[in-house]
Amino acid sequence: MQSREVSIERLLGASRTVARDHVVVEAPLQLRARGAPVATVMRTPGHDLELARGLLHAESIVGDVRQIDDDAVDIDVDPGAFAGRGLLSSAACGVCGRVAIADLETHAKEVAADTTMAHAVIAQLPDLLRERQRVFAETGGLHGAMLATVDGACVVVREDVGRHNAVDKLVGHALTARLDPAAHALVLSGRIGYELVQKAIRLGVPIIAAVSAPSSLAVELAERFNVALVGFVRGERANIYAHAWRIL
Amino acid sequence: MQSREVSIERLLGASRTVARDHVVVEAPLQLRARGAPVATVMRTPGHDLELARGLLHAESIVGDVRQIDDDAVDIDVDPGAFAGRGLLSSAACGVCGRVAIADLETHAKEVAADTTMAHAVIAQLPDLLRERQRVFAETGGLHGAMLATVDGACVVVREDVGRHNAVDKLVGHALTARLDPAAHALVLSGRIGYELVQKAIRLGVPIIAAVSAPSSLAVELAERFNVALVGFVRGERANIYAHAWRIL
Repeated sequence: MQSREVSIERLLGASRTVARDHVVVEAPLQLRARGAPVATVMRTPGHDLELARGLLHAESIVGDVRQIDDDAVDIDVDPGAFAGRGLLSSAACGVCGRVAIADLETHAKEVAADTTMAHAVIAQLPDLLRERQRVFAETGGLHGAMLATVDGACVVVREDVGRHNAVDKLVGHALTARLDPAAHALVLSGRIGYELVQKAIRLGVPIIAAVSAPSSLAVELAERFNVALVGFVRGERANIYAHAWRIL
Repeated sequence: MQSREVSIERLLGASRTVARDHVVVEAPLQLRARGAPVATVMRTPGHDLELARGLLHAESIVGDVRQIDDDAVDIDVDPGAFAGRGLLSSAACGVCGRVAIADLETHAKEVAADTTMAHAVIAQLPDLLRERQRVFAETGGLHGAMLATVDGACVVVREDVGRHNAVDKLVGHALTARLDPAAHALVLSGRIGYELVQKAIRLGVPIIAAVSAPSSLAVELAERFNVALVGFVRGERANIYAHAWRIL
């Protein structure tokens, strides 16, 4: 399963319809070495043996790989071969979905604020972000992230070659400036992976809007923690993947 | 310095001109805890204190942060607070540029093959990749990567929510199928970060072509390891950032 059907609200100007949409699946693959779990990578299911072989190649680890089940592969190598390896960091993330949600439940709360935002305001945000992306304009190579007020005013924009970094910079700014996160939306220039939703939840931001698509786990996290998730914000169009009641 | 000027060859149909372009800087920031190095993150310079505060927030670590120099910040917390933390994995990568190049020099060689490829062939590759991206078409949420022959034939396409994973799957496929990497180009749907160049070099692929921009470190690695790096492949246009002699 590389994609999953979800229920969304599709906005087009003032019209609003419930629809079905497909989101890409983001799910954990456990790597075991002769039965012992040694790493977990988040990936889109499919071609797991190739993925494992590619990861091993990057780490100069040699061993036959076989599929154990839908979520695990086993490598015929001593587990000690993985000691101190950067395997997890090279694979975007090392926690499984259930762990991610459980971990958040111990470190963060549902976003309690009843913050709402008008679709007409959200529709302006991508252009506002793009205008402020100074380095992107020069290089075309940067991810951008912005905190905006619920009235659509730009508070701060940060850019980075790493999209997580751009959001971490925003979080750092919000903490330093003692912003009230509940009064702000997080705006992203690209896709919405679950780690970005995680960062928004930990900060306490109730609304995430992005130009592009969310992953399955991003939708699950937003749903669970009371965050509105708006994707494909393009002109008059937008898709709401979670907590549509926040979008007026 | 968030961007750096580099020398490129700019292609437009049959015309070819030497030009200057800007690439986004990808450089290491060292995090220290009371003087002891505890992590290194790759980031675009700027707002380093905010980045550090955001990373600490994500890890529930509390401590004042101050800038030591352009490449390091110090956190007023016991270094033990970082034991077992996923800090590096949440920050895309944990190695500095010099380490990345030195590490590659021990694990990989320059791509020795004298492989070349016609610009007219490269110009077709992004459309070919897009056509084959089955799940992207459905969800809009996936990174795609392709291996193509130097004649422009698609050999294999892999998709994943993580762009590193998509390339790892290709590498795994190439190893399993015993493809001759020297006879292939790696085609990417997005930006060219240095880790992707690293993976291509380790496999031995001499040409990388992408729809979007490379980072500064991606250019440095390609230059050092004899790999042609072609960015912004869009219609008749393309920019060559390294080893332009491979592109005819």
